[in-house]
Amino acid sequence: MSVVKSELRRGHYCDSIVLMQLQAALAGLPGIADSGAVMATEANRQLLASQGLLPEDAGEAGDGDLLVVVKAEDENAAERALGQIDALLARRRGGGGEGYRPKSLAAAVRQLPAARWASISVPGRYAAELARQALELGRNVFLYSDNVSLDDEVELKRLAAERGLLVMGPDCGTAIVGGIGLGFANRVRRGAVGLIGASGTGLQAIASRLHQLGAGVSHALGTGGRDLSAEVGGATARQALALLAGDPATRVVTLVSKPPAPAVAARLLAAARSCGKPVVIDFLGYVPPVRRIGSLHFAAGLEEAAELAAELADGGPQRVAASGGEGYLRGLFAGGTLATETLLQLRLFLTPLASNAALAGVERLADPTASRGHTVLDLGADELTVGRLHPMIDPDLRLRRLRREAADPEVGLLLLDVVLGEGADPDPAASLAPAVAEIKRARPELAVVLIVVGTGDDPQDRDAQIERLSDAGAEVYDTVAGALARASEWALRPASLPAVEAGALASPPAVINAGLESFYSSLVDQGAEALQLDWRPPAGGDEKLIALLRRMR
Amino acid sequence: MSVVKSELRRGHYCDSIVLMQLQAALAGLPGIADSGAVMATEANRQLLASQGLLPEDAGEAGDGDLLVVVKAEDENAAERALGQIDALLARRRGGGGEGYRPKSLAAAVRQLPAARWASISVPGRYAAELARQALELGRNVFLYSDNVSLDDEVELKRLAAERGLLVMGPDCGTAIVGGIGLGFANRVRRGAVGLIGASGTGLQAIASRLHQLGAGVSHALGTGGRDLSAEVGGATARQALALLAGDPATRVVTLVSKPPAPAVAARLLAAARSCGKPVVIDFLGYVPPVRRIGSLHFAAGLEEAAELAAELADGGPQRVAASGGEGYLRGLFAGGTLATETLLQLRLFLTPLASNAALAGVERLADPTASRGHTVLDLGADELTVGRLHPMIDPDLRLRRLRREAADPEVGLLLLDVVLGEGADPDPAASLAPAVAEIKRARPELAVVLIVVGTGDDPQDRDAQIERLSDAGAEVYDTVAGALARASEWALRPASLPAVEAGALASPPAVINAGLESFYSSLVDQGAEALQLDWRPPAGGDEKLIALLRRMR
Repeated sequence: MSVVKSELRRGHYCDSIVLMQLQAALAGLPGIADSGAVMATEANRQLLASQGLLPEDAGEAGDGDLLVVVKAEDENAAERALGQIDALLARRRGGGGEGYRPKSLAAAVRQLPAARWASISVPGRYAAELARQALELGRNVFLYSDNVSLDDEVELKRLAAERGLLVMGPDCGTAIVGGIGLGFANRVRRGAVGLIGASGTGLQAIASRLHQLGAGVSHALGTGGRDLSAEVGGATARQALALLAGDPATRVVTLVSKPPAPAVAARLLAAARSCGKPVVIDFLGYVPPVRRIGSLHFAAGLEEAAELAAELADGGPQRVAASGGEGYLRGLFAGGTLATETLLQLRLFLTPLASNAALAGVERLADPTASRGHTVLDLGADELTVGRLHPMIDPDLRLRRLRREAADPEVGLLLLDVVLGEGADPDPAASLAPAVAEIKRARPELAVVLIVVGTGDDPQDRDAQIERLSDAGAEVYDTVAGALARASEWALRPASLPAVEAGALASPPAVINAGLESFYSSLVDQGAEALQLDWRPPAGGDEKLIALLRRMR
Repeated sequence: MSVVKSELRRGHYCDSIVLMQLQAALAGLPGIADSGAVMATEANRQLLASQGLLPEDAGEAGDGDLLVVVKAEDENAAERALGQIDALLARRRGGGGEGYRPKSLAAAVRQLPAARWASISVPGRYAAELARQALELGRNVFLYSDNVSLDDEVELKRLAAERGLLVMGPDCGTAIVGGIGLGFANRVRRGAVGLIGASGTGLQAIASRLHQLGAGVSHALGTGGRDLSAEVGGATARQALALLAGDPATRVVTLVSKPPAPAVAARLLAAARSCGKPVVIDFLGYVPPVRRIGSLHFAAGLEEAAELAAELADGGPQRVAASGGEGYLRGLFAGGTLATETLLQLRLFLTPLASNAALAGVERLADPTASRGHTVLDLGADELTVGRLHPMIDPDLRLRRLRREAADPEVGLLLLDVVLGEGADPDPAASLAPAVAEIKRARPELAVVLIVVGTGDDPQDRDAQIERLSDAGAEVYDTVAGALARASEWALRPASLPAVEAGALASPPAVINAGLESFYSSLVDQGAEALQLDWRPPAGGDEKLIALLRRMR
């Protein structure tokens, strides 16, 4: 019969490494079967409970309180172990000995003025304040800490952008700057691939795979997982693009992230297309049907991203000419799947994108008779074909709509499918070619892009159809992929990159580390100039006092 | 100043082709600027209104009523045009002359007993009844009609499955059976690729592209867009797989569809893996990170699907050995992106799949401390790391969870990442290898699959780590893709295919056509034996009378 006993120390902050070591030391004491040493957050208390390590009499506790638990063979062993806490913590505290450590960032910057970077891994609720101080001292920030609020992130990145500084994170697990890893980082060959990632282990997996494939990494810049949300707007990702665009060692950029918020996607893709280098993109779970758009290469996973980047890095320098059109796209489709394929392709290139078809990331049109911004319509949808022929047989409805869209001066590109074959309109060009000619006479700048689906054996005589439609002024593609590549290029508007301080990537970097000592040791092991801050929670971790101090600043 | 006038004929049914021709004829009359001729459904009335073709005095009307509208230069021209309706309809009616046409399916089957197929394109509200009759007469059904209810579809497919018959549709736009196109179909070379599609123009685009690439099509079988919904359960898709599996001309199968409902996906993929032939899969918008799993090849779009199929068809016969494991998968990840990549890979292979991470198609676990069925956990998620070290540094929590999962007899595969590099656990094998060895001693049949992310230059000595973990009994992969391919193969359980009547694919097919005459002409043009049914709505289209007649059967 084992007993579980605990000790709660209110307002006693411990570094996570200290907690891990305290827990391991307690578990090694005689008569102890298991142990826990945590800051008493709700989540940690639940975890202890699920491990049978939360005694009923543990009482109320909060994020700033230290909770130590032992599971022992009897009362005596438990009491003896809990009696050791101070000695174990003291042993740990005495283990240092690296000489003087500054207690503030300002002092650290005076001591190591070459440091362009502050690496911050203190608990989340203290991290934003420290990052703000670093920015005000003109330093770039690697912000490993998680549990930083979205509001704080937005504010920090606004401040950073004003100064041309970078904030990687919060919750940025990994980076490699000038060959030196910050946070978690694999030792990889230096090379031509620059990485940007809102995804820590994604960056690590790609970097490691590049190394396996014989390629190398110039820099790997993390952004934090929320950077591409609508609120943050991809601030760090766009700065990172600007830094790598200007970095002579980087020949290929690789971007890995969950799919951006639609409001952010088009702007980021346009920036990637305008950065002057090939960009491999792995938006986890988003793979457009056409995977190469000019200098943008979309990968279906971490493995493909690494393979594509290695291939491109191996291919020598490339001229990358950007493209882009103006106005709204209107797609008028007879084929439902062709409309869907178009939406799948364009939903991150043109945002917002509307349709009568339902698809994640696409706005649903309540009234399909009125287009709104960029719009792709399935004119063969059930609700539009009750008691009337499918538009693949009867062109009337689509031709009316085509003329209406062409008359809208905000429309810049019209995209239509022409499906040939048995059962379909025996001569689609007969009605469509005159309509296109009329549109092009009135508005020569308006692009009319047609996808012809069919074979040379189809009864409509495909080649003659294509010739008549081309003569009328349409751009005719005989594959879906060709037309979607054209529309995607048109969708990518020229974009400028934000101003950044190029010194951020100077090599090797000098770094001030606040938080996990293991990150400091790792910097030193890698040969970087580094300085460990002797950081403690302000006001002994007393939340009320901290808030008061903040207001007094 | 133009005038718009209309005429409403209650309970007057017209075939859609007749309506198209009536509208065109009216528009060509002197003094007429525009015209409309529709069955007066709500959607059609809205469309007319948006074209300025719905006079205010048009009155109430319903689906069974004929509405004819003209826009004329003056009252006289309008009246004259509307006065022509009967003459124009009569001219059309007299245009036939192909001899005797049976008025019922039963009579048609007596007249053309060789017909294994009924092609049905009558209005949706009459189509299910006709399809049911065809099945009861032992005929396979090509059901072009849309606006057929989901309940009717489920019932028709249940009836069809009982008899080993196929129902393609409802809303099936295209099929090619034994070289003859049904509905809309491109003329393509006959060849080794068998197509299955819940997507009409998707099938057409792939078939046309295969032809362009020099490949050919054995058969193309449509399923209707709802076939892979949870309600219908992929009934037709699985039958089509069975037919193509047994068809000697088909060497490669290609499946195109929107992503199946999760409840349907795993079963369908298992059937595809078990069908004995390579299968190219294009689930529009779903692309797993690892795109080849044994004989299954996932394409990112219509173009890639055609290219992959053409390549495989060119490659000669292939031995396809199925695989599959037992029990639940439990993934315990330190890396958030690695957990996401795993979910992206497995979400259609293992259903339902649960996680503490949010992702479409994945069930959210309210309590991450308790797994449920197939479960993949991100143990480095924000809510689990407040006041404690990330699992890439502190293995304690994950090892506890690993032992708990291994003790669950329903668990068949454990999947973990081991991320090496600067900043991470300096020796993960020290704690993980003994835990794996202990698990394998207790349950040798339990698969423990590890993904090691890192390089040979990492401080942990990657090769030594891999050796110690392998010696303990783990299957160790040094790429994410390798481990995910292994887990995907394990997920595909052996599956049997439904029984089907092989005569469905006999070539060339004989077809009874009910509905659009253009489909009948197209069958005749292609050299198929075909018979047109002289179909009229039962009871003159009177809904109440139809319901009464149905109850009396």
